[in-house]
Amino acid sequence: MKLDRHSSIPLYAQLRELILERVQEGTYAPGSKIPSEMEFCQELDLSRPTVRQAVAELVADGVLEIHKGKGTFVTEEVEKIVIPHFTALSFSFLNMNSYENLGLKSIKLLEPDRETDKYFQFPEGHSHPGYWLAEWPLIYDDQVMGNCQSYIPVQIFPDLGQSIASGKRMVDIKSNKYAYLPQKGSLSISARPARNKEAALLEVPRRSYILVAEGPLFARSGHVCEVLRIILRPDLIALELN
Amino acid sequence: MKLDRHSSIPLYAQLRELILERVQEGTYAPGSKIPSEMEFCQELDLSRPTVRQAVAELVADGVLEIHKGKGTFVTEEVEKIVIPHFTALSFSFLNMNSYENLGLKSIKLLEPDRETDKYFQFPEGHSHPGYWLAEWPLIYDDQVMGNCQSYIPVQIFPDLGQSIASGKRMVDIKSNKYAYLPQKGSLSISARPARNKEAALLEVPRRSYILVAEGPLFARSGHVCEVLRIILRPDLIALELN
Repeated sequence: MKLDRHSSIPLYAQLRELILERVQEGTYAPGSKIPSEMEFCQELDLSRPTVRQAVAELVADGVLEIHKGKGTFVTEEVEKIVIPHFTALSFSFLNMNSYENLGLKSIKLLEPDRETDKYFQFPEGHSHPGYWLAEWPLIYDDQVMGNCQSYIPVQIFPDLGQSIASGKRMVDIKSNKYAYLPQKGSLSISARPARNKEAALLEVPRRSYILVAEGPLFARSGHVCEVLRIILRPDLIALELN
Repeated sequence: MKLDRHSSIPLYAQLRELILERVQEGTYAPGSKIPSEMEFCQELDLSRPTVRQAVAELVADGVLEIHKGKGTFVTEEVEKIVIPHFTALSFSFLNMNSYENLGLKSIKLLEPDRETDKYFQFPEGHSHPGYWLAEWPLIYDDQVMGNCQSYIPVQIFPDLGQSIASGKRMVDIKSNKYAYLPQKGSLSISARPARNKEAALLEVPRRSYILVAEGPLFARSGHVCEVLRIILRPDLIALELN
């Protein structure tokens, strides 16, 4: 990319794209110092305000950082935490051996709702006693990375809420229920702007992009026994798929 | 959520959050018409400019749409195309049976580069003859949904570029090479702002969020035989994980 003095695009915008390109191609490596304003002026025959505005916009975008008294640096991306061997069952509540260290926020009885019901393939007009919602945060290094919601039909696990409130062990909760535990699942992975409540949970600005994994888990019979909705901070987490 | 007239948050901003909450909770369903300015004024005892500013910001955010002469509607999310049974091998070039209908943009010989080399676990200072880069778009309904790049070591497939240029069939390219074809992989799935070139490929504004699946594929021997870098438009595509 070269600067074009006859273009209708202002020079500062061209320079901004030029610097961005050099960052993206690795000419200016993450964490390294980029040339000073003066050096850019000399290299490209530009005025100082032009350089300053290009740099200021890249700082606002989070691409560059000014370290006072030291110069301007390429922002170092945080190394993402990778969730290894991610599968549809990785964050299944029913699949866990214990919930003691999960940081379970609550287990609530919910009315049936349209968005969750759609996964259960209930026949039209089917009424059911609702779901247990188990919700817990994903925390690494004291930092919230994500949030998990698991919806479990009351029909299948009528006493789940009481069992957990009374501290019953997972192995006892699941005994005699093996036919109803998740064997496989079908999660849809996508990215979308956070809803306000999700943004608050993940401690990100409203409508920031989040990574979402959601969908039904199936018991041996083929029936849906759990629905998962996992939201993740894409700046901090990646899923490893094998 | 209720409006608080004693709050330091301006009323229009509170109303904006109130409407957004109603959209996110489904009170105002996707595609449906929301109350008119006048109705909001009456329901909440607000002035018309206050309502107008709240609505205008949600229109700018893409949450609401004004249909001229008809009213204000909740933006209907495009139904995403789901890529079913997505695995690390779904978009492997070497795993394909043919490339005729792929819309292959190019197959280029590339020098070794640091970002791709890191997947190959080469010993320090290892020199190698580089990669073949096969690149193709993911198109559905004449719309670019994503872009795939596959890096294949020249060491393993020395004639790949020539074979494809001469129209050799995939089955012939792969014959006697079965030990070097991908058996499993390890893709990292994340979301991040697009680089400028990626944004251009996907026809999205620069630094829009994209979904990225990238990582190595392994041959039976355990050696890396292909590296994939798949970028997707998260507004149009979701990955189904089983």
